[in-house]
Amino acid sequence: MPGVQQLLGAVAREGTFMEIIGEKINGTRKRVARAIAERDAGFIRDLARRQAEAGSAWLDVNAGTHPKQEPDDLVWLVENVQAVVETPLCLDSANPQALAVAIEAVEKTPMINSISGEPERLEGILPLAAEHGCRVIALAMDEKKIPETSAARVAVIHKVMEATRAAGIPDERIYVDPLAMTISTDVQSGLTFFETMRAIREAHPEVHFTAGLSNISFGLPARSYINRAFLTLALAAGLDCAILDPLDRELKAALIAAKLILGHDHHCLDYTRAYRAGLFNGAGGKANHE
Amino acid sequence: MPGVQQLLGAVAREGTFMEIIGEKINGTRKRVARAIAERDAGFIRDLARRQAEAGSAWLDVNAGTHPKQEPDDLVWLVENVQAVVETPLCLDSANPQALAVAIEAVEKTPMINSISGEPERLEGILPLAAEHGCRVIALAMDEKKIPETSAARVAVIHKVMEATRAAGIPDERIYVDPLAMTISTDVQSGLTFFETMRAIREAHPEVHFTAGLSNISFGLPARSYINRAFLTLALAAGLDCAILDPLDRELKAALIAAKLILGHDHHCLDYTRAYRAGLFNGAGGKANHE
Repeated sequence: MPGVQQLLGAVAREGTFMEIIGEKINGTRKRVARAIAERDAGFIRDLARRQAEAGSAWLDVNAGTHPKQEPDDLVWLVENVQAVVETPLCLDSANPQALAVAIEAVEKTPMINSISGEPERLEGILPLAAEHGCRVIALAMDEKKIPETSAARVAVIHKVMEATRAAGIPDERIYVDPLAMTISTDVQSGLTFFETMRAIREAHPEVHFTAGLSNISFGLPARSYINRAFLTLALAAGLDCAILDPLDRELKAALIAAKLILGHDHHCLDYTRAYRAGLFNGAGGKANHE
Repeated sequence: MPGVQQLLGAVAREGTFMEIIGEKINGTRKRVARAIAERDAGFIRDLARRQAEAGSAWLDVNAGTHPKQEPDDLVWLVENVQAVVETPLCLDSANPQALAVAIEAVEKTPMINSISGEPERLEGILPLAAEHGCRVIALAMDEKKIPETSAARVAVIHKVMEATRAAGIPDERIYVDPLAMTISTDVQSGLTFFETMRAIREAHPEVHFTAGLSNISFGLPARSYINRAFLTLALAAGLDCAILDPLDRELKAALIAAKLILGHDHHCLDYTRAYRAGLFNGAGGKANHE
């Protein structure tokens, strides 16, 4: 049924319908920043364990934004996460020094989060990524500015991919984030995201797509509903990875239901397994009539 | 942004993002059958009122499947619904005799639910629909058999539309139901639905699309999650009408969130209005973490 791929984007490739990058170990969150500052290993290990059990393919580790402490803090995070789980890590830093020491500390080849069109970041990070065989998240933005139009975002990614290819990184290790802007300030944000994804996939069929999902709902109430709708539609458009909270049951329920509708859950195995595990016993699963 | 229409199907046309046909007054449901048999007008009127208040563009009325009583029962339903709401009706019957008397009883031009490729049904119903200017739901099936492939369903609709055009019914009055089969018996059901919709829209750009949503989840637990994912994806594929339960808060919340992501809710007006009205206060709106 070739038309369907075109119709609903490129539904994620067989085998890896969707990789979740668990987002919770992030030093820009207050509670995590405190755990890092106090070297509260128990708190970090618990977050790692729970996110791994919830099916994360990767665990994001972000040590916050103190440039001097970042290398030590990131290595401390890496060591504590690796002490309890085998899930590979997504090293979340724009700081080549922090990345360089963290890469030495990881046991499995990590993903790097992230590069962009910013030349300094490309120059600092690409040699590391190439040398260690890392996958890399590439943001569709330049010099910290996010282009408004999908055409301009596509142009940034073309530039980034010239650099990744020149560095010897194969396209299939690139995870493009088309960037979901806040929909409350631009009603076209979702469409711009989907169109950016379509155009990049057409030009670079081997790349993956990822996104920080929840930015789209920033500033609106009941954000979870918006995030679920966005995830469902982004899956249809070809998203095969996302940075999200794997402990959000309703979001995961939406993901599993979308996988079923999109024809990727043979014999409804994932769906019925999730049901037996109680995923749909949450409040949203009840008939909830007026 | 023309690419997006292709990418995510033809997102429903401006102005009428989505018409809901309220499904609850249906004599094949036991409780409604009893109300019809006992001439319990209060029960029917209450269902009519609540569905109208919940934003139904149409109210389906189905008097059940007793051929002899159907004409009287359908007229009784029509009269009682019209006694309390101004919402136009969707006359749900395959019986030309019942439709003929009900059409005389309606105050506003009704929709007819439904025709199919079955010649008897076309011959019995099309003259009525043409004479009274009715919109008509056209099922993508022949002689009570639902073709498995989208190509075969498209062929049925081509035949049906030859007949509707010959009868003088303009294409924009046709609401094609591509037919959602049970996904637990065919994992391709959703994709077949979307592909059927895409092919028919390409050939007949003026028609609308509708669907009885909930059949897709038949036989599976926690059906509401599946119905919501299907509705969200079908909207992206161009569904602009659906027969559903307008009192299902979670389904409506999913609809409003999808409308927002698909760029049809300018200034987030519908979303914030629904929020203020309490639509997202249901259990599914709570952060629901493990």
